[in-house]
Amino acid sequence: MTRRVAVTPVRRRSGHDINADQDLVAVESPLALAVRRPGDEAVVRLGLLMRTPCDDEDLVAGFLFTEGIIREARDLVDVAVTHGGPRGEADAALVTLRPDLEWDPARLDRGAAATSACGLCGRLEMLAVEDGRACPAGRPAITSALVESLPDRLARGQSAFAETGGLHAAALVAVDGQREVIREDVGRHNAVDKVLGAALARGWLPGHDLLLAVSGRVAYEIAHKAVTAGLPAVAAVGAPSSLAVQAARAAGLTVIGFVRGTRFNVYAGWERLEGTGKFPAGSP
Amino acid sequence: MTRRVAVTPVRRRSGHDINADQDLVAVESPLALAVRRPGDEAVVRLGLLMRTPCDDEDLVAGFLFTEGIIREARDLVDVAVTHGGPRGEADAALVTLRPDLEWDPARLDRGAAATSACGLCGRLEMLAVEDGRACPAGRPAITSALVESLPDRLARGQSAFAETGGLHAAALVAVDGQREVIREDVGRHNAVDKVLGAALARGWLPGHDLLLAVSGRVAYEIAHKAVTAGLPAVAAVGAPSSLAVQAARAAGLTVIGFVRGTRFNVYAGWERLEGTGKFPAGSP
Repeated sequence: MTRRVAVTPVRRRSGHDINADQDLVAVESPLALAVRRPGDEAVVRLGLLMRTPCDDEDLVAGFLFTEGIIREARDLVDVAVTHGGPRGEADAALVTLRPDLEWDPARLDRGAAATSACGLCGRLEMLAVEDGRACPAGRPAITSALVESLPDRLARGQSAFAETGGLHAAALVAVDGQREVIREDVGRHNAVDKVLGAALARGWLPGHDLLLAVSGRVAYEIAHKAVTAGLPAVAAVGAPSSLAVQAARAAGLTVIGFVRGTRFNVYAGWERLEGTGKFPAGSP
Repeated sequence: MTRRVAVTPVRRRSGHDINADQDLVAVESPLALAVRRPGDEAVVRLGLLMRTPCDDEDLVAGFLFTEGIIREARDLVDVAVTHGGPRGEADAALVTLRPDLEWDPARLDRGAAATSACGLCGRLEMLAVEDGRACPAGRPAITSALVESLPDRLARGQSAFAETGGLHAAALVAVDGQREVIREDVGRHNAVDKVLGAALARGWLPGHDLLLAVSGRVAYEIAHKAVTAGLPAVAAVGAPSSLAVQAARAAGLTVIGFVRGTRFNVYAGWERLEGTGKFPAGSP
């Protein structure tokens, strides 16, 4: 569980060909964070950090430092990291603080992911099914032409990026190419929230015929937002993370990465891509 | 306050020249989020979203939707956005929810920034001064040669990025070029936390002689982490946001962007860059 890179099956589109292959993705996985003082029985659970599993001790120390919980090295007595468990538990870091350090656990609530227990991928699938939002398996069909059109669509809607190079864009595009909405923001999650908010106001959600396109990368949280909105697919100009791919497979979401010219890679849910019927059966 | 792009003075380095010029940066600013039900006097303050100020109604709706607070458009009765105030108050969004909607404010705590009042830049300056962590004004000197070396240093330390294209890297490099530590992660904030955690363990903090280099962009939170650690400078392969520049100027932090070959732009604190003495006086 300390790998930074994982091998994953992929479908590579290039020109008119789509071929089965393997690709490497950056590993993203949750680290459960808990804090105690020496001699104190009580452990305060601080939730999950979504991270690449390497240098976890550094991550925990730096996180506590930049959040203002510790101010110097001696405030941190120990960071004990355990990797997984027999029942698929998350990796965990148990922090021991200096006994007389004053700190406020309320300062350490980092985002919504921090409130959940582990088994994220399974939870995501259950969420979609229980809510009745899940997009029907295998549908709708997504054409390569639509995927190829996404970078231009993002660029057209991204006037401020062209000027600053500093904004992320997100677009929702109907699979027939006839409707689209594009938003931008310095934060990639904000750009996605903006297009989903616009779609909600238009009555487009759950969006079983809408593809989410993003100018950056696809980490777990982007996949989570797509499933919450009932979308069948996410396509990105950049790379997906391992956990985004894993969660997408659990939830039936199509994930497409590295969309450039006539090339792209499909990491999950490739049965929705036209022309993929020729692949060997039994692939994920 | 609805601009997505702001003009900012900059020092452009190219070859052996450094010239005063202007540049455009993506605007990042806080939006204070508060929620009430119709007929309910009480307003629940949910903190700040750091965002690019456009399509705020979409952002708020999408944020509430993806966080699971609302499930359909009718759950959201109104989003009233006000821009600033006479005493420099933050932009604010007051959300009115459907009266009978069940929701839990505790689900909406989005990161540490969400707990602060506005006036972020001023707070950042005060934080640094009160803590005694602020790097001395004007020192240390930073050479162009060091800045030019940063992309290669990041690339050398970023083995997993080369394989996946999916990881951010952060490095702390001493201004004399003699010490460095490099970490990577799918999350840019995590990569920065990791190098700061490693520096803390080595006794390097507050790091008045350390420059932070990042493979991506510099938004407010990265500048905040640098100031918390007492660093004099941040250099990025990508673009800075407006708020990162504004906060850096308030706190005395040097911000360098678009480091590529012998070119880079200095957005704040350029008095630390060698060879900048020839600029007209009175520039920020």
